[in-house]
Amino acid sequence: MIKVAIDAMGGDNAPEEVVKGVVSAVKKSQDVQVFLVGRQDVVEPMLKASEFDTNKITVINAAEVIEASDHPVQAIRTKKDSSMAVGMKMVHNGEADAFISAGNSGALMVGAQVLVGREKGIDRAPFVCVLPHAKGTSLLLDAGANVDVRPEHIVTFAKLGTEYLEQSTGKKQPTVGLINIGTEETKGNELTKSAYELLKADGDINFIGNVEPTGLTAGAADILVCDGFTGNTIIKMYEGLGKLMLGTVKKSFKKSLMTKIGALLVKDSLKSELKPFDSHEYGGAPILGLKGLVMKTHGNAKEQEFTNTILQCVEYLNNRRDI
Amino acid sequence: MIKVAIDAMGGDNAPEEVVKGVVSAVKKSQDVQVFLVGRQDVVEPMLKASEFDTNKITVINAAEVIEASDHPVQAIRTKKDSSMAVGMKMVHNGEADAFISAGNSGALMVGAQVLVGREKGIDRAPFVCVLPHAKGTSLLLDAGANVDVRPEHIVTFAKLGTEYLEQSTGKKQPTVGLINIGTEETKGNELTKSAYELLKADGDINFIGNVEPTGLTAGAADILVCDGFTGNTIIKMYEGLGKLMLGTVKKSFKKSLMTKIGALLVKDSLKSELKPFDSHEYGGAPILGLKGLVMKTHGNAKEQEFTNTILQCVEYLNNRRDI
Repeated sequence: MIKVAIDAMGGDNAPEEVVKGVVSAVKKSQDVQVFLVGRQDVVEPMLKASEFDTNKITVINAAEVIEASDHPVQAIRTKKDSSMAVGMKMVHNGEADAFISAGNSGALMVGAQVLVGREKGIDRAPFVCVLPHAKGTSLLLDAGANVDVRPEHIVTFAKLGTEYLEQSTGKKQPTVGLINIGTEETKGNELTKSAYELLKADGDINFIGNVEPTGLTAGAADILVCDGFTGNTIIKMYEGLGKLMLGTVKKSFKKSLMTKIGALLVKDSLKSELKPFDSHEYGGAPILGLKGLVMKTHGNAKEQEFTNTILQCVEYLNNRRDI
Repeated sequence: MIKVAIDAMGGDNAPEEVVKGVVSAVKKSQDVQVFLVGRQDVVEPMLKASEFDTNKITVINAAEVIEASDHPVQAIRTKKDSSMAVGMKMVHNGEADAFISAGNSGALMVGAQVLVGREKGIDRAPFVCVLPHAKGTSLLLDAGANVDVRPEHIVTFAKLGTEYLEQSTGKKQPTVGLINIGTEETKGNELTKSAYELLKADGDINFIGNVEPTGLTAGAADILVCDGFTGNTIIKMYEGLGKLMLGTVKKSFKKSLMTKIGALLVKDSLKSELKPFDSHEYGGAPILGLKGLVMKTHGNAKEQEFTNTILQCVEYLNNRRDI
């Protein structure tokens, strides 16, 4: 049985959608027990409205809530009875195998390192993001947890990403590319030039060299590694440019009666082709290198994303136990 | 009269398209004299096929060519009689006001700093790029010339960008944003946090704070500043994601007979709305902070882009003289 703690109070649609997502998850999987962490007085009445196996869901009371606007470090330090802090301590104490939250990302990253704690030998825990490209998806790490890193941290990211992809999908020896502004070995800044040498020398990584952002979108590698500043820039470019280009396409559809008719004819096909670009499709994103699994879902996640993320944790942790 | 030297041998379509672009430019502007720098035996016969005022175009012989595959530093050091080296030396010596090339970008950046030389007080010369967004365009600098910078260099980029935008478009006190992974003052890596303080304290810059990549694509500031690694990552994300998303739209159009008919109806409108995303629309991109103007055009530039870039130099330098 996989034990998953979830932040009932985190995200724009908490607690309603979290509760719904949890109820769906325990109906879909026999292997999971969920701890709904949050204000008991709010969560329990919602839960009572649904039908489910009561052995599968336990409400854990936490009186405080970390708000999206709270300062991450301060929030983790002072709100000791928040749903986030209580849930992560359960992972630290071995009472839960994983913790999921749609709440304050900064606080989750800080809490992950401070309350859950890093695995032995890991001194930076990276945040992973799934990026769609021309041929499927790649994992990008670090996507924003560590903005100032040393070259050896990038090697750690490559190893953690390789292990995660192998264990979550079964893919053997996934390819690793270093995000850089040129493909040649000599290209880049001081950080990427040093990281290149270390990655090349490491026998455990299937390193294929530098990958430019243009190569990333073409699907050059299974795993892409970089510092958290660059990684966060890349995911925000996906978000911003995606929105800008879709807005442009929509604008062109509204130009005249003729384009409006044309738009009706292509709409469904376009929607289905663009589905891989909807980041909600990929569920939660893990923070790796910790003593337990911590997953972040989108701030505006709804029922289905919470359900999928719980099931994702179950699958990954089951695979991991089998190894 | 503005004197523009142009690399006849640089780019995928040299020298044919360069020669055509130069001939068009001198027909369009009375204010320009062009030096076509390159192999005289190749360029002169091409020129003879066209009609134009022979006082306006002079061929300057340069026997060597810097290839796209050449190592930038080595190329500038050893190929002293290359079209690029000869053209930039003309700017250094005051024989030309500007130099334009579609050739090896790395060599152009190195040559700009070494052969043309930096303005007094400038110790990093940034590369400028025009980025389309929801409401128009912004200037991004540094777009890739300086991959490791200190916070004070970012302030230099902000000043050079402000001056350039004011002089090339007449816009007064353009807004400057710092590319960062959060909008709050405390966000970012060591470099951006320090740069924020310096930009905020500088009275000559209309600094509006941090701009995330998502804000960039929404048109948050006239000028965006960052280190050259981040800037180059951003322009390559534009290129890569633009290609990926357009490919996806096209794929959705080919799905069935119905979508093919729909595509015919929206095609022209879509093409016209997407025009601002074609980087060729913006002509050349300058390297600023030098003793003269150096402009880079796309490697695959054709006649029109060369013409536009020449006219762009003329307009900017005329405005600058008027101030």
